[in-house]
Amino acid sequence: MANITKKVSWSSRGDDSGLTGEGTPLLNGSEIPKPSRQVSMVSLDYDNIENQLFLEEERRMSPMGFRCLEISRWVICGLIGILTGLIACFIDIMVEKLAGYKYQVIKENIEKFTEVGGLSISLILWAVLNCAFVLVGGIMVAFFEPIAAGSGIPQIKCYLNGVKIPRVVRLKTLVVKVIGVICSVAGGLAVGKEGPMIHSGGVVAAGVSQGRSTSLKRDFKMFEYFRRDTEKRDFVSAGAAAGVSAAFGAPVGGVLFSLEEGASFWNQMLTWRIFFASMISTFTLNFFLSIYHGKPGDLSNPGLINFGRFESDSVAYYYYEIPLFMCMGALGGLLGALFNSLNYWLTIFRIRYVHRPCLQVMEALLVAAVTAAVSFTMIYFSNDCQPLGPERNEEYSLQLFCADGEYNSMATAFFNTPERSVRSLFHYQPGSYNPMTLGLFTLTYFFLACWTYGLAVSAGVFIPSLLIGAAWGRLCGILLASFTPTSPIWADPGKYALIGAAAQLGGIVRMTLSLTVIMVEATGNVTYGLPIMLVLMIAKIVGDYFQEGLYDIHIKLQSVPFLHWEAPATSHWLTAREVMSSPVTCFNRIEKVGTIVDVLSNTSTNHNGFPVVSRLELTQEKNPAKLCGLILRSQLIVLLKHKVFVELARSRLSQRKLQLKDFRDAYPRFPPIQSIHVSQDERECMMDLTEFMNPTPYTVPQDTSLPRVFKLFRALGLRHLVVADDVNRVIGLVTRKDLARYHLGKHGLEELQLAQT
Amino acid sequence: MANITKKVSWSSRGDDSGLTGEGTPLLNGSEIPKPSRQVSMVSLDYDNIENQLFLEEERRMSPMGFRCLEISRWVICGLIGILTGLIACFIDIMVEKLAGYKYQVIKENIEKFTEVGGLSISLILWAVLNCAFVLVGGIMVAFFEPIAAGSGIPQIKCYLNGVKIPRVVRLKTLVVKVIGVICSVAGGLAVGKEGPMIHSGGVVAAGVSQGRSTSLKRDFKMFEYFRRDTEKRDFVSAGAAAGVSAAFGAPVGGVLFSLEEGASFWNQMLTWRIFFASMISTFTLNFFLSIYHGKPGDLSNPGLINFGRFESDSVAYYYYEIPLFMCMGALGGLLGALFNSLNYWLTIFRIRYVHRPCLQVMEALLVAAVTAAVSFTMIYFSNDCQPLGPERNEEYSLQLFCADGEYNSMATAFFNTPERSVRSLFHYQPGSYNPMTLGLFTLTYFFLACWTYGLAVSAGVFIPSLLIGAAWGRLCGILLASFTPTSPIWADPGKYALIGAAAQLGGIVRMTLSLTVIMVEATGNVTYGLPIMLVLMIAKIVGDYFQEGLYDIHIKLQSVPFLHWEAPATSHWLTAREVMSSPVTCFNRIEKVGTIVDVLSNTSTNHNGFPVVSRLELTQEKNPAKLCGLILRSQLIVLLKHKVFVELARSRLSQRKLQLKDFRDAYPRFPPIQSIHVSQDERECMMDLTEFMNPTPYTVPQDTSLPRVFKLFRALGLRHLVVADDVNRVIGLVTRKDLARYHLGKHGLEELQLAQT
Repeated sequence: MANITKKVSWSSRGDDSGLTGEGTPLLNGSEIPKPSRQVSMVSLDYDNIENQLFLEEERRMSPMGFRCLEISRWVICGLIGILTGLIACFIDIMVEKLAGYKYQVIKENIEKFTEVGGLSISLILWAVLNCAFVLVGGIMVAFFEPIAAGSGIPQIKCYLNGVKIPRVVRLKTLVVKVIGVICSVAGGLAVGKEGPMIHSGGVVAAGVSQGRSTSLKRDFKMFEYFRRDTEKRDFVSAGAAAGVSAAFGAPVGGVLFSLEEGASFWNQMLTWRIFFASMISTFTLNFFLSIYHGKPGDLSNPGLINFGRFESDSVAYYYYEIPLFMCMGALGGLLGALFNSLNYWLTIFRIRYVHRPCLQVMEALLVAAVTAAVSFTMIYFSNDCQPLGPERNEEYSLQLFCADGEYNSMATAFFNTPERSVRSLFHYQPGSYNPMTLGLFTLTYFFLACWTYGLAVSAGVFIPSLLIGAAWGRLCGILLASFTPTSPIWADPGKYALIGAAAQLGGIVRMTLSLTVIMVEATGNVTYGLPIMLVLMIAKIVGDYFQEGLYDIHIKLQSVPFLHWEAPATSHWLTAREVMSSPVTCFNRIEKVGTIVDVLSNTSTNHNGFPVVSRLELTQEKNPAKLCGLILRSQLIVLLKHKVFVELARSRLSQRKLQLKDFRDAYPRFPPIQSIHVSQDERECMMDLTEFMNPTPYTVPQDTSLPRVFKLFRALGLRHLVVADDVNRVIGLVTRKDLARYHLGKHGLEELQLAQT
Repeated sequence: MANITKKVSWSSRGDDSGLTGEGTPLLNGSEIPKPSRQVSMVSLDYDNIENQLFLEEERRMSPMGFRCLEISRWVICGLIGILTGLIACFIDIMVEKLAGYKYQVIKENIEKFTEVGGLSISLILWAVLNCAFVLVGGIMVAFFEPIAAGSGIPQIKCYLNGVKIPRVVRLKTLVVKVIGVICSVAGGLAVGKEGPMIHSGGVVAAGVSQGRSTSLKRDFKMFEYFRRDTEKRDFVSAGAAAGVSAAFGAPVGGVLFSLEEGASFWNQMLTWRIFFASMISTFTLNFFLSIYHGKPGDLSNPGLINFGRFESDSVAYYYYEIPLFMCMGALGGLLGALFNSLNYWLTIFRIRYVHRPCLQVMEALLVAAVTAAVSFTMIYFSNDCQPLGPERNEEYSLQLFCADGEYNSMATAFFNTPERSVRSLFHYQPGSYNPMTLGLFTLTYFFLACWTYGLAVSAGVFIPSLLIGAAWGRLCGILLASFTPTSPIWADPGKYALIGAAAQLGGIVRMTLSLTVIMVEATGNVTYGLPIMLVLMIAKIVGDYFQEGLYDIHIKLQSVPFLHWEAPATSHWLTAREVMSSPVTCFNRIEKVGTIVDVLSNTSTNHNGFPVVSRLELTQEKNPAKLCGLILRSQLIVLLKHKVFVELARSRLSQRKLQLKDFRDAYPRFPPIQSIHVSQDERECMMDLTEFMNPTPYTVPQDTSLPRVFKLFRALGLRHLVVADDVNRVIGLVTRKDLARYHLGKHGLEELQLAQT
């Protein structure tokens, strides 16, 4: 029988407004410390708040007007694609330049000191250079914009899901993110530059689609129609897709990523626009990189990471290899769960002890120095020398103690940007690495990557995961080949590297459909679709048994009321009556200004949406009364700011009629109630909410089961759902947080505590 | 200003039940004749009808039970994939065998008579062989299962959209479809075998997921939980995806096809399962074909159509070619619109005059004979001789009047299965065709294909479209090359053939996202993504200006209440009050059996869903009363059949309590009311609907705008939506048909007449 195993009651019960991220979710049964910085999240409303003003505007608009809007949407998506592609291009070139310069300097230094002795000086040089880059990136992130830390994928996932973490789509965040990611990759950390592209794409989209920048205080008076949550969300999902597309050269993968993470309601035209943005983004990147590389017209660099081409003929797989691949998938799931668990405990530790910005920067510096030291030691003690082939010319190959015409094989893995290391693991000839090198590399890089994720630097986890997986995958391939030395089919360890990379990445991030398509597009080979899919599936199943995905862990640690795809399977016996908040603060259709100001100023409740009721004067009972609309805090604030008051004598005080434009201008940074001054006289005035409220909010009866309420929320993107009794009186209000509390644990339905403390 | 330009009032206003396909939509302003066969459509309910029985079952189920259900879903998807792959394999092998035999016989005959004279005998032989095949296929379709005609894609689109055309997912339909498509392809018609695979996949899914076959009267007592519309729809979308996947070797394309056409509510796990079915399907096909071709383990036949591999190096495109591609897209749109218009008029003609089965078979025979005659004539008068190269060995090359060591180039296009013709247009060396040959071929094949689509044979339009496009695309390539003889980049007309094929197909079917991905996967080359996308986009925009897509035309001609993605843009001023049906037939919570039987038997209204109301005995007013539930005709029929009556004395007559199983056993072929005998005594009994009705139907206030109602329908898959007033009394009911009536025409909002006459 389903039952709630952990029920935590709470004292103060708020609405979804100002969801503070300082909750204490019960994850694995242990109390989690509060994050040091309070992150106050905002629920987004993707249901169209249609009020009379909006309907009037729509009615005035001609079919031609709608067509123009549609064209603007396409133009915006094109712009998003171009800008995202340009940002990716900028990051790529800067990283190449800086890393190339760094490796060149260190290489010359090492070569000099290999002969004369005293390689410890090279080590110090390497560590200092790394630390210098990481210092810049760390300071930017820790002091200027902490939200730019990490890959930004959890934040974008939350945004598309309907929870906005403040400052996540601001211009400043974008600038810090871009500089930060350049610094951390050039600084030699075990990070990738791909994840942050998704965040960058989202910020670009949020900026372009609004036709203004609040940070730069410029309003281009364009695209004003799109200044609301629904439209902005659609563009942000296009931006995220464009980011994926530029990062991996995977436009279809980008579209699927956006859909998998965000779009609850699939719309053909929207998807098509998202695809357009993705295509433009990868094309722009390709175009400019081809010019930069001096080969204009050669469209062979569709993404930041280029896995190189897997030709079907040389690396075909056979169906009897599929069980082997599946075992690798299981291994990937196990290693992924280990990675996530370690990172989870590390994050708890960081929340508890490493919360001051200067401490965070110091930790980042420590990691940078340790990374350099470990890499150097591994290379120094490695005696895996390989002959220099023609394919090595573009790499930074180190000779070190090897004979002339040979290079140190460990150095191709460590002394390189991670993207290039992945590519060499995929494509180098059999025999380019010896098993010992790969084993040691996997081990050290695993712990380095795990330590690095969550530092106060902008960095992605995709490439390190791929690199770890490619290393142990190639190792598997070599071992298999050594068991069956006569059979030619095991000849190519590159394909095992690919499968290993997929397994490890799948085990860590637990993405499925989109990741399959991304991998297929990045390898440029459709025939690997089936094994990659199976591997990702197995990795997810095995991994989920032990631990959640990395992004989900970080989302949960922030106490975000994240709504999954469906209500927990065993929740049919819960009804709206049990999940709703009650009693609800309602307003009258014509309400006293003083009452409104008082309710909005009440910080203990901090409600965000208010049912509007019409109370018959005759009835003596105070509450409840008949529902006739729903109004948001943000709308009330705009009304108060513009003083749309009615004197008791019913003549309008306000000079001009409030228009939709006034709401759009204030979007999305509505001022707090404290900044609005209302005089004592004005408090006695009345406000007529009729024109501004949504006159037809969705309601459900109180016996509606949780799955039905959930579906309504998820499919329509609701923020508030009114629960009404059989004569349409308000008896409760369901918000996102009320639904996000329930989840299916190992022992049945569990209830998380997501409320403020 | 938005306004309804064409408003047609109707006399009898029914519910969505028994939607007869004999409406007279006003398409292009002309009255359309009724189709001869009445097709009575059924709306599907994708909103979970949760009643007390269902909730009790869910409550009894343990978390482990839900896990088992989830595993069964995966198993079913695997089975769907395997079976669909096997069917594709069977079709492929049969077509190859039969067509190979046919072409061999004719070739020998032609060779014989080329020397001795009297080729007219060969022509007659060709025509007779074609007619023989088409006769078998035509009789099967016209006499046994008319629903198996055509590609079945419009029918599957309707099913996924929520309208079931009867017999569309039956086993008999599948058998007729498979045999029919083998006959029509082997019979040399201008058709493909790919479209029908989508329908076949859907039927397989509908059968497997229900764990029984009503046609074979076998119930395996499995998967009983899935016997309802929502679950079945999910599996059918997986089946359709598996069909696409097997047809084109495009698993991702299959998933996107299903989503584009069907899934209004995107669910991660569902999508993942659909992807699984697609992957298994293409793998199964690949596996068995590789064994059949004697090369086990060689996984290079992922689909029925194999476009051959476009290697990036040899056929790279340059960005300055993109405008040229876009012009070809516009041409494709124009030609597509022309094709659709011709086919539209032809279909009208057929509905009017060719409605008897024997006439339909005769038309099919005529087309088969004409196709043979035209092909023969074209080959006979062609003097385009080309030298035999090594790549020709697998084709049926005709020497005819060419010199020894040469073959007739026109014959590679006509004397071949269409799939092989497409492949040769894509990949043969420059110079393999002369422009005259291609021009004539395009022209004749265009009209043949247009005439063929809509015949009473199972046949797809994908391959003929691709073939027409590839022919004129290659022609464009050759012409361009002749303008710039010195430049090497125009050297390969194959890539222009590919772009032309995409443009023509896009112009005819107007699919966008999924078609791009299908084309990319079928060519095995990701770099062509951008040009193919742009071409499809332009083709759609240009085509839509003149005429709708082919499938949409055929859906409209059947008066299906098809819901598009969004409500028309200019419909914000319409409210639920204006679109709803009113007054509504309601039942009391405890209702007299006689009343129920009378209402259900009333053929003039033919309602399908009934609000259940609780009427206070005190109130004298008859109607309306408070809403307390919603019950479906099908549920009432099961109740009547099992005689779940309550005597007036309130003791139960029924021996056993009705269980969910009884409803599931009756699904989906609920008996008609006429077949249920209710005695005069029983008519006086009462029925208590409380346990069986959905106690929490979704409701909207009467002022809700059409777009909001529409979104609710589309996102939740509703069939009925109750419109309630401010005290929760029923004042109307919105059904799918009420919403499908409105669409945006050239002059603003138009209202179609979809009602029965």
